[in-house]
Amino acid sequence: MAIHVEMLPSRRQAQGHSRRNVGILVQIPLGIKQIFQGHLYSPYQLRLHARIQPDGSAHEKKQIVQSNNYRKMYEENGARHSQLDWPNRLNRCLYVLMREFHYYLLTYCDLILAPEDQERFFMQDVRALVFDVFGTVVDWRNGVARQAANFLAKNDVPMEPTEFADAWRRRYQPAMEAVRSGQRPFVRLDILHRENLEAVLTEAGVDVAAIDPQELAELNLAWHRLDPWPDVLSGLARLKDRFIIAPLSNGNIILMLDMARRAGIPWHTILGAEVVQAYKPAPAAYLRTVDLLAMRPEQVCMVAAHNNDLAAARACGLKTTFVLRPTEHGASQTTDLHPEQDWEVTVDSFEALADALGA
Amino acid sequence: MAIHVEMLPSRRQAQGHSRRNVGILVQIPLGIKQIFQGHLYSPYQLRLHARIQPDGSAHEKKQIVQSNNYRKMYEENGARHSQLDWPNRLNRCLYVLMREFHYYLLTYCDLILAPEDQERFFMQDVRALVFDVFGTVVDWRNGVARQAANFLAKNDVPMEPTEFADAWRRRYQPAMEAVRSGQRPFVRLDILHRENLEAVLTEAGVDVAAIDPQELAELNLAWHRLDPWPDVLSGLARLKDRFIIAPLSNGNIILMLDMARRAGIPWHTILGAEVVQAYKPAPAAYLRTVDLLAMRPEQVCMVAAHNNDLAAARACGLKTTFVLRPTEHGASQTTDLHPEQDWEVTVDSFEALADALGA
Repeated sequence: MAIHVEMLPSRRQAQGHSRRNVGILVQIPLGIKQIFQGHLYSPYQLRLHARIQPDGSAHEKKQIVQSNNYRKMYEENGARHSQLDWPNRLNRCLYVLMREFHYYLLTYCDLILAPEDQERFFMQDVRALVFDVFGTVVDWRNGVARQAANFLAKNDVPMEPTEFADAWRRRYQPAMEAVRSGQRPFVRLDILHRENLEAVLTEAGVDVAAIDPQELAELNLAWHRLDPWPDVLSGLARLKDRFIIAPLSNGNIILMLDMARRAGIPWHTILGAEVVQAYKPAPAAYLRTVDLLAMRPEQVCMVAAHNNDLAAARACGLKTTFVLRPTEHGASQTTDLHPEQDWEVTVDSFEALADALGA
Repeated sequence: MAIHVEMLPSRRQAQGHSRRNVGILVQIPLGIKQIFQGHLYSPYQLRLHARIQPDGSAHEKKQIVQSNNYRKMYEENGARHSQLDWPNRLNRCLYVLMREFHYYLLTYCDLILAPEDQERFFMQDVRALVFDVFGTVVDWRNGVARQAANFLAKNDVPMEPTEFADAWRRRYQPAMEAVRSGQRPFVRLDILHRENLEAVLTEAGVDVAAIDPQELAELNLAWHRLDPWPDVLSGLARLKDRFIIAPLSNGNIILMLDMARRAGIPWHTILGAEVVQAYKPAPAAYLRTVDLLAMRPEQVCMVAAHNNDLAAARACGLKTTFVLRPTEHGASQTTDLHPEQDWEVTVDSFEALADALGA
């Protein structure tokens, strides 16, 4: 994958050094700032040398980290080792370095990323984009409300359609928590949705037993027939050539399949909770997915409109993209209106994500 | 789904009966032939009445099977009940009836399928086509041979490329059998392929330890880069609109994904051994896949070039399509040159399958 870089002459280059150096700053826990310099042979062949910069002056130190060693650590210790958080720390620090330590870059490094290329640099190892779906890809609230309207009127349920959608959705996390906590074995989301539907109706004073089961089953399929946000199909069409694109949703396989076929969402495959038998944000949901893809965590990017999903993905070593969906919960939404960490990419549409990744 | 039928006037119709009757013959174990007559309201509303025909004369008997009851049995007893083999028996008998008992059809039935519509009738409930891949979708033998040629020459392996491909493939079933029998836990096919590769090379007198591990890893990916048979892409493009299409292969997820992206195979999703953690022809491989699709077994059709795969799928209640691939094992192939049971559909290409299903 080509990275666009802005080449600046460095002091080393002026002195006749021919190899390209890339500068990366690492903020270690003790507060000592280190500049690593390395030879960028390939994304996996970044050999790092450290220069300690406690007072702003640079002096040579022994080689601390070799990306080859780092890679070996992964292979020997498995995906859990990703929680060492090295890739994220490197990314964050490179960003800080570029903003605040431009002098050292000019002095010691040959390769400096232009600001507009940072996202592509952070994402250069990424081979798969995995997407949260409810809220990120599709507008569940209006979709459920639209499909519930007739049912609510016919059965005298005393709720507005969007109020009903919100009430149904409010039971989503608690229902999955029973699985995540081990209280009950894994069951697919269609089953949780059905249980939650009956609970919401009962709470609203409706006698569920008096309703035609076929009608309940039909309403439960509302989640299979949600519409994507307007930017989704065009954005995914562009991203699909360069990346493996797949949902990493808590929705089950046939739910995702029905939705994709109805709306024309061009997934390469359906991944997610049912495939790995674990609900997000449990680490297993991310780590097992990475394992199925036979990739390292930093080769997979989680795309979501929810900061907590991204935080859990980052803790597992995945890259992260925040997509702003300011009306997922309606016009008066108060959550997830801003990125709460410096996610590798922050955008307001899938089109903008394709732009950011040069797809 | 519309079924094209050839309408013939029946005696009942001539007598003023207005409902349409469909005739289905069931050959029961005792050798007594029964004609079931029914009212075909919809694919799931075939209400059957029996007429015993031990001597060729028809006399009324009580209603034996209602498809509604049959459906309920499924829902109450789960997928295993599919092994009752009702759908297949009905299919086979309808076929026999049409050939041998035309008189009874003309007498008692209003709806008779034209021969060219039989396959569509047998497949009318099918919503998903799941495909065997190695041999059925892709030509693994020439693909592996092509990619191994340089490696074999460079490392002085004393084998022809196709001989090498055959030897590698011969270890495929025994390796999976260790998993199927419970000797070892499920491991993905990429790992079995790698073990088998080293075993084949060792057997050929090659010192595997002396070969660059990167080169072995690369050769192992040959299975990710196989070409489809010439009819596959055009056939799947036609089938994709009407059916969910997915591989149900023993190949693992990333193997199938890499292959599909390289060759442009338009799967809706990747299913198969790794998703359900079971290798075909173990019943769990088929039954868990049906469960993930939230369908009844007869709504899923296994498409394969191998009779044993289809026999295992049929035993689980799935519909079956045999695709003749007479050169999978080279010009002198001796196996799977004929359908060994009356599979619902038998074709020699994916194009012909699309024709047969009216896609």
